[in-house]
Amino acid sequence: MSARPYRALLLSGPNLNLLGTREPDVYGTTTLDEIHAQATELGRSLATFVECRQSNHEGELVGWIQDARGKFDGIVLNPAAYGHTSVALRDAIAAVAVPTVEVHLTIPENRDRFRHRSLVAGVCIGRVSGFGANSYLLGLRGLIDYLRAR
Amino acid sequence: MSARPYRALLLSGPNLNLLGTREPDVYGTTTLDEIHAQATELGRSLATFVECRQSNHEGELVGWIQDARGKFDGIVLNPAAYGHTSVALRDAIAAVAVPTVEVHLTIPENRDRFRHRSLVAGVCIGRVSGFGANSYLLGLRGLIDYLRAR
Amino acid sequence: MSARPYRALLLSGPNLNLLGTREPDVYGTTTLDEIHAQATELGRSLATFVECRQSNHEGELVGWIQDARGKFDGIVLNPAAYGHTSVALRDAIAAVAVPTVEVHLTIPENRDRFRHRSLVAGVCIGRVSGFGANSYLLGLRGLIDYLRAR
Amino acid sequence: MSARPYRALLLSGPNLNLLGTREPDVYGTTTLDEIHAQATELGRSLATFVECRQSNHEGELVGWIQDARGKFDGIVLNPAAYGHTSVALRDAIAAVAVPTVEVHLTIPENRDRFRHRSLVAGVCIGRVSGFGANSYLLGLRGLIDYLRAR
Amino acid sequence: MSARPYRALLLSGPNLNLLGTREPDVYGTTTLDEIHAQATELGRSLATFVECRQSNHEGELVGWIQDARGKFDGIVLNPAAYGHTSVALRDAIAAVAVPTVEVHLTIPENRDRFRHRSLVAGVCIGRVSGFGANSYLLGLRGLIDYLRAR
Amino acid sequence: MSARPYRALLLSGPNLNLLGTREPDVYGTTTLDEIHAQATELGRSLATFVECRQSNHEGELVGWIQDARGKFDGIVLNPAAYGHTSVALRDAIAAVAVPTVEVHLTIPENRDRFRHRSLVAGVCIGRVSGFGANSYLLGLRGLIDYLRAR
Amino acid sequence: MSARPYRALLLSGPNLNLLGTREPDVYGTTTLDEIHAQATELGRSLATFVECRQSNHEGELVGWIQDARGKFDGIVLNPAAYGHTSVALRDAIAAVAVPTVEVHLTIPENRDRFRHRSLVAGVCIGRVSGFGANSYLLGLRGLIDYLRAR
Amino acid sequence: MSARPYRALLLSGPNLNLLGTREPDVYGTTTLDEIHAQATELGRSLATFVECRQSNHEGELVGWIQDARGKFDGIVLNPAAYGHTSVALRDAIAAVAVPTVEVHLTIPENRDRFRHRSLVAGVCIGRVSGFGANSYLLGLRGLIDYLRAR
Amino acid sequence: MSARPYRALLLSGPNLNLLGTREPDVYGTTTLDEIHAQATELGRSLATFVECRQSNHEGELVGWIQDARGKFDGIVLNPAAYGHTSVALRDAIAAVAVPTVEVHLTIPENRDRFRHRSLVAGVCIGRVSGFGANSYLLGLRGLIDYLRAR
Amino acid sequence: MSARPYRALLLSGPNLNLLGTREPDVYGTTTLDEIHAQATELGRSLATFVECRQSNHEGELVGWIQDARGKFDGIVLNPAAYGHTSVALRDAIAAVAVPTVEVHLTIPENRDRFRHRSLVAGVCIGRVSGFGANSYLLGLRGLIDYLRAR
Amino acid sequence: MSARPYRALLLSGPNLNLLGTREPDVYGTTTLDEIHAQATELGRSLATFVECRQSNHEGELVGWIQDARGKFDGIVLNPAAYGHTSVALRDAIAAVAVPTVEVHLTIPENRDRFRHRSLVAGVCIGRVSGFGANSYLLGLRGLIDYLRAR
Amino acid sequence: MSARPYRALLLSGPNLNLLGTREPDVYGTTTLDEIHAQATELGRSLATFVECRQSNHEGELVGWIQDARGKFDGIVLNPAAYGHTSVALRDAIAAVAVPTVEVHLTIPENRDRFRHRSLVAGVCIGRVSGFGANSYLLGLRGLIDYLRAR
Repeated sequence: MSARPYRALLLSGPNLNLLGTREPDVYGTTTLDEIHAQATELGRSLATFVECRQSNHEGELVGWIQDARGKFDGIVLNPAAYGHTSVALRDAIAAVAVPTVEVHLTIPENRDRFRHRSLVAGVCIGRVSGFGANSYLLGLRGLIDYLRAR
Repeated sequence: MSARPYRALLLSGPNLNLLGTREPDVYGTTTLDEIHAQATELGRSLATFVECRQSNHEGELVGWIQDARGKFDGIVLNPAAYGHTSVALRDAIAAVAVPTVEVHLTIPENRDRFRHRSLVAGVCIGRVSGFGANSYLLGLRGLIDYLRAR
Repeated sequence: MSARPYRALLLSGPNLNLLGTREPDVYGTTTLDEIHAQATELGRSLATFVECRQSNHEGELVGWIQDARGKFDGIVLNPAAYGHTSVALRDAIAAVAVPTVEVHLTIPENRDRFRHRSLVAGVCIGRVSGFGANSYLLGLRGLIDYLRAR
Repeated sequence: MSARPYRALLLSGPNLNLLGTREPDVYGTTTLDEIHAQATELGRSLATFVECRQSNHEGELVGWIQDARGKFDGIVLNPAAYGHTSVALRDAIAAVAVPTVEVHLTIPENRDRFRHRSLVAGVCIGRVSGFGANSYLLGLRGLIDYLRAR
Repeated sequence: MSARPYRALLLSGPNLNLLGTREPDVYGTTTLDEIHAQATELGRSLATFVECRQSNHEGELVGWIQDARGKFDGIVLNPAAYGHTSVALRDAIAAVAVPTVEVHLTIPENRDRFRHRSLVAGVCIGRVSGFGANSYLLGLRGLIDYLRAR
Repeated sequence: MSARPYRALLLSGPNLNLLGTREPDVYGTTTLDEIHAQATELGRSLATFVECRQSNHEGELVGWIQDARGKFDGIVLNPAAYGHTSVALRDAIAAVAVPTVEVHLTIPENRDRFRHRSLVAGVCIGRVSGFGANSYLLGLRGLIDYLRAR
Repeated sequence: MSARPYRALLLSGPNLNLLGTREPDVYGTTTLDEIHAQATELGRSLATFVECRQSNHEGELVGWIQDARGKFDGIVLNPAAYGHTSVALRDAIAAVAVPTVEVHLTIPENRDRFRHRSLVAGVCIGRVSGFGANSYLLGLRGLIDYLRAR
Repeated sequence: MSARPYRALLLSGPNLNLLGTREPDVYGTTTLDEIHAQATELGRSLATFVECRQSNHEGELVGWIQDARGKFDGIVLNPAAYGHTSVALRDAIAAVAVPTVEVHLTIPENRDRFRHRSLVAGVCIGRVSGFGANSYLLGLRGLIDYLRAR
Repeated sequence: MSARPYRALLLSGPNLNLLGTREPDVYGTTTLDEIHAQATELGRSLATFVECRQSNHEGELVGWIQDARGKFDGIVLNPAAYGHTSVALRDAIAAVAVPTVEVHLTIPENRDRFRHRSLVAGVCIGRVSGFGANSYLLGLRGLIDYLRAR
Repeated sequence: MSARPYRALLLSGPNLNLLGTREPDVYGTTTLDEIHAQATELGRSLATFVECRQSNHEGELVGWIQDARGKFDGIVLNPAAYGHTSVALRDAIAAVAVPTVEVHLTIPENRDRFRHRSLVAGVCIGRVSGFGANSYLLGLRGLIDYLRAR
Repeated sequence: MSARPYRALLLSGPNLNLLGTREPDVYGTTTLDEIHAQATELGRSLATFVECRQSNHEGELVGWIQDARGKFDGIVLNPAAYGHTSVALRDAIAAVAVPTVEVHLTIPENRDRFRHRSLVAGVCIGRVSGFGANSYLLGLRGLIDYLRAR
Repeated sequence: MSARPYRALLLSGPNLNLLGTREPDVYGTTTLDEIHAQATELGRSLATFVECRQSNHEGELVGWIQDARGKFDGIVLNPAAYGHTSVALRDAIAAVAVPTVEVHLTIPENRDRFRHRSLVAGVCIGRVSGFGANSYLLGLRGLIDYLRAR
């Protein structure tokens, strides 16, 4: 098994900055900062540098994904609401061709009908959903396994 | 009937800065500044401070709603075009749990098909549409009545 | 601002005679008689005579709307269930061309799917929904503002 | 060609009592009384007694159709709005098995989408639409020809 | 097993007054009067008073259901055509909260497409269909068993 | 009532040349030649010259309608199968702006689903269906009445 | 009324072996064994032998229905989940032409959308739903009445 | 972090016994036996006993899930083709209320349309897809994390 | 087994004259002339005269089918593109009531969505698809077997 | 043309064991045993060994297809009801990559709507339907021609 | 930039021969002859011979496209009504593999719903719409640029 | 032909800044800077000043369009992903009433289904798609021709 260090970009979309305080019965009490810390820690144990960012702006997320080319080996993306409405995010992922894993705290297919469609799934290598904050960690682990197996 | 002063946030979405000059046969000749003045005046007569803002950026509107928690007692929101396409706005309202009234100048259900779906209605306490600029005032009044009755 | 007296017809459709006793967690505890009293009072303060009627019969409501021509300046209509199924009510409003405001206690778009379609909205000047009994009052106010502005 | 006298029932549904005054650019200026007179006259010239009635009540129309069995040889029915929403009218026609012709002043298929479906067509022997008041007369003529040819 | 006397209201919707003469190959030769007699007899053997009514008017059926509150322990309802089109009937049943069983002579799901949707099922405690006149009796029996088990 | 002679073009689409021999239980035993004779005769009694043609070719029908401009006062068209599939026929009628009546031997809405859509109805002044060969005669009469009333 | 002994086959589909322990708030606390005992008892009182079986295997249920020909006078079938997905069950019932009644503990039309379609209803003589365990007994009674009336 | 031993049931549906030899460009070259070995090994490192089974029979899978109650703490299920067509599998999971994770080798939403619908997702605590054989391992890890956090 | 000579008409629709040169990776390299020769040869070995024609014109194909009545015992039809759009072809086959077999080189259901609907299948006795040029021969054989078995 | 002996597997799905006795007006009077005999005989005349099996169990059919790899050169499959509902059968065929022909006694596209979708067609080399028992023989012939041409 | 002379075929579908006289408010006042002259002139300035034809016959257009192979370097096609209904035109373009540009005078997506689907777009290299007669010239220019760049 | 200088605004939406490097097999190797240079050059040769901008932010594009009023004579807009999801862009174009041409590098109707809907087309004067970078130049030329012809 290879041990060369990877660089992963962990992105979170709109409203995820409220995690821990927003509807805790739905999304749990872990904050985004705590998730970032856990992901960084997990990355370190797997010889991977993890950079974490959040934005409420669709255009800013598009820009970050564009800039990832050549700088990161993979992306863990929780697109939140934009995963259901943004063709621009999809096009950005397809354009840079950086392996991307889509994660969700809950299972979108079990919630409102307008959350059933993922515009992003078609350009991702894997999906993890429903494990709360742990979805990020499982997705990161899946991404690193994927990079190692390439 | 209570008389304690409330704080209301009145938000307008994309293209509403053009009000009064944009398609006046559809949207009337009142400008957004005039609406803001009328709403402020109505608020004063009902012992309510009203702060008014407009943005063409989905992410900026999301941010303003997030920041309303603890600072405002209620929101009057004309989401305009974003009301039909933004899951992010909906999630923001649900997250902060500040009572919100959705207003529209016209009746969206009587216009183009892609305006029939409101992603925001499901997390609002009421809707007012079709009265032109007066929709804002009726919505603000409805919000204050709601706050007083709580 | 004009002060000439107006005549408004306030109509309620099927099952609204049960208001206050029917599913109070959904529809509140105010009775239809109380709403009629509040609307009459509000009308008086705005120099408007308000006549209030209720019927469970689609045909009777159609007849009342037909007879409103020349007798009333405007109509506030809570079509209740018939708003979703009655093309006849719509045709009656279109035929007499008396300005009509559609009101609902709750937001129909947030309830069962078969309540999403309004056959009446297309021939109304405005809609108010979700404020409980206050929807009638906001609608009446919106109608009078509309008549004055004409 | 036979000359034995027939008995025909000519029924009109909701809002047709307003004909001539209601939206004359859509429905023309002929009143329902004038149509009744023309139909009676045409019937006389074709050795057929024509009885004409109108109602805004779905249940009353259902009752009239039920009673037609044994009393009338055929029905000319302008169901108006109820043609698009009433399964009860359809069942009544099917139950009495009296030959029925569906007529409309305009072509419903060219108007609002909710007027495209005819629940009544499936149990009628013929349809005439789009000729204004003349649709009644062509439909009556078609019914009598049908009865003679039987 | 309890033996206290119950009061049941057995309602039939439009065109069912024609039973026995209307399309006997579809609906059988039993008349509505005979069904009423059989239901009364079955009720007597199960210590239940049964009152039977029929109407072609949607509004009249709505009124009867409204009046059942406090006067009857349960309702057996054959809504006929109105079961597929009437939101008002549904609202009435929900409003009075009297246990209601929906019955049909035939299986609507096996007939025309517009008979597949039941607006009434969602507020009933049970459904019986396809047994002809016997659907009424099985439905009445099911209602009484339900009342006893409460 | 005017008596000036009109010129009407009576067109029949594909397979109608087989009338009388083709599926007589569906379409009757009258041949197209007999219909042409009856229409010519009816036209004569109403001071109208009627020219009758049939074709199995969509393009030929399109050409005939184009050529009708300036030569005929109106068209009676049985588009048969092409009525459900031909946008070209519709465009031709719209282009020449000659008043056109659509006729069908049977009621298409009561047959296969792919016969429910009429691409032609939207550009016609009236429709007659279900009276067998008599649909042509009623349609011709409706057209002449329309021309006289202009 | 006939008294000759009948033979009925009572079949239950997948997961019904868990009845009484599985989601008792949805399905009640009665076990399948208790239902079998009650049905056997009711059969005895109506001079009918009742044989009861359950399987989680679609193919086994198909086989039992096939074998019922000549051995049983009728079938009471709770297809459970297979009622919504199995064309094979439907074909089996159609093939053996043994009168079959479809029963459900709850009203499927009021639950998930994928439970609305019944592939089995089209080949059954009647349906009973919503009465919990009593649906079996009412269905069995309906079947025996049907056999007696034949 | 707790260290008490868990028992997990890892189930695979139809055709997965062919893994490694079946369409390797789609599903990879790892065999099911190898996956079973990896999962067992991962379980051991996380103090969890893992039992692995595969079946092509819907009924057998239903039975195994039913039997898991009381014997296993959680289930990792790759329903394969049955995930898109089996209501019975869904009902079984809901009935036993054992925490279940749905896994897929590929992302079904990116393949044929009939693979987009998951009947099972609605009763699972999480989903993992697209990582090939690693989906099993990530799903197992997510399940154990879930059990520990309870 | 009968040996009396039959007459079969083998028809090919639009673009099939290009066979062998048109997209050979989809349609193979056999030309239409070669297929005609093989079909003629196969017909001879089965005591059947086969006449072969091709046209790009919908109207011409309709005419040939009409003329087949009384002249041919059966038709083998590759409608190509017209099979998905032509109601006229369907009506022609139904009108002449000559046994017809529909053949396709490829399996239309596996290609573009607009090729999934066959308007012709409903009036054919059998279908063969997917065997390339051999579809014609299998279809011809099936037709002759059918004629012999009649 | 090659003459080396082939091995073909002829499979029949649920309810086909009833052939000849089940709804003979739809499916004919030939039994499955007779079809097996005819197919064996036809195979012998074309130097092909034919093995015939039938099952009502989806899982058993899946297993037989899996086992065909390396043992048979091709499959003739009448999936019956499972052809419309089984993704598992499709996956099995795709997995073993043995050339498969789908056959049906009738034309499914002309029957109930839920029989229109074939989940199996997409992985077959050809389809034959509508010729009754002869569909098996034509399908077998098409398979052998295909194998010879490879 | 190359200067070798190209040969382009400019085809117009049904009713375009009426251009300039047909609904000038929709299609403009330029005639087809004038467009042909402009296209010829533009072609000359770009060293391209342009041949222009129009037909109302689907089959004739199919034939012209077939014959273009080897004779023309590209096609500019205004399919008019046939663009929405003709699979045959599409197949012809795919068969000859001559680069084709689809042009429309108006934007079909902004007109009737049945004009939204283009069956031809999928086999074209580009589309131009909405510029009136200029759409032809822009399309021709785009075609020539495409040929030069190859 | 007029020669007065025009001012055109050429806008490109999200991800187009990656042109030339992003999926070159789909979008070509020309960069956006090169397109800007070519458009500027073409504008100069047609006496038109062309200003070029790109943004990944929906709100920024909305603002640029709003500011174009009075400053530019027309807009050439490649909305990219936002063309399928942004009602705000559409409202901005309708509000400023500056003639706008929609351009796309590829033909969206031939790609993913969620790219088929254009929310922008309804407010544009023309569309050009499929010519790669040349779509911009043809669109610019069409815009200038339109301005000259006004």
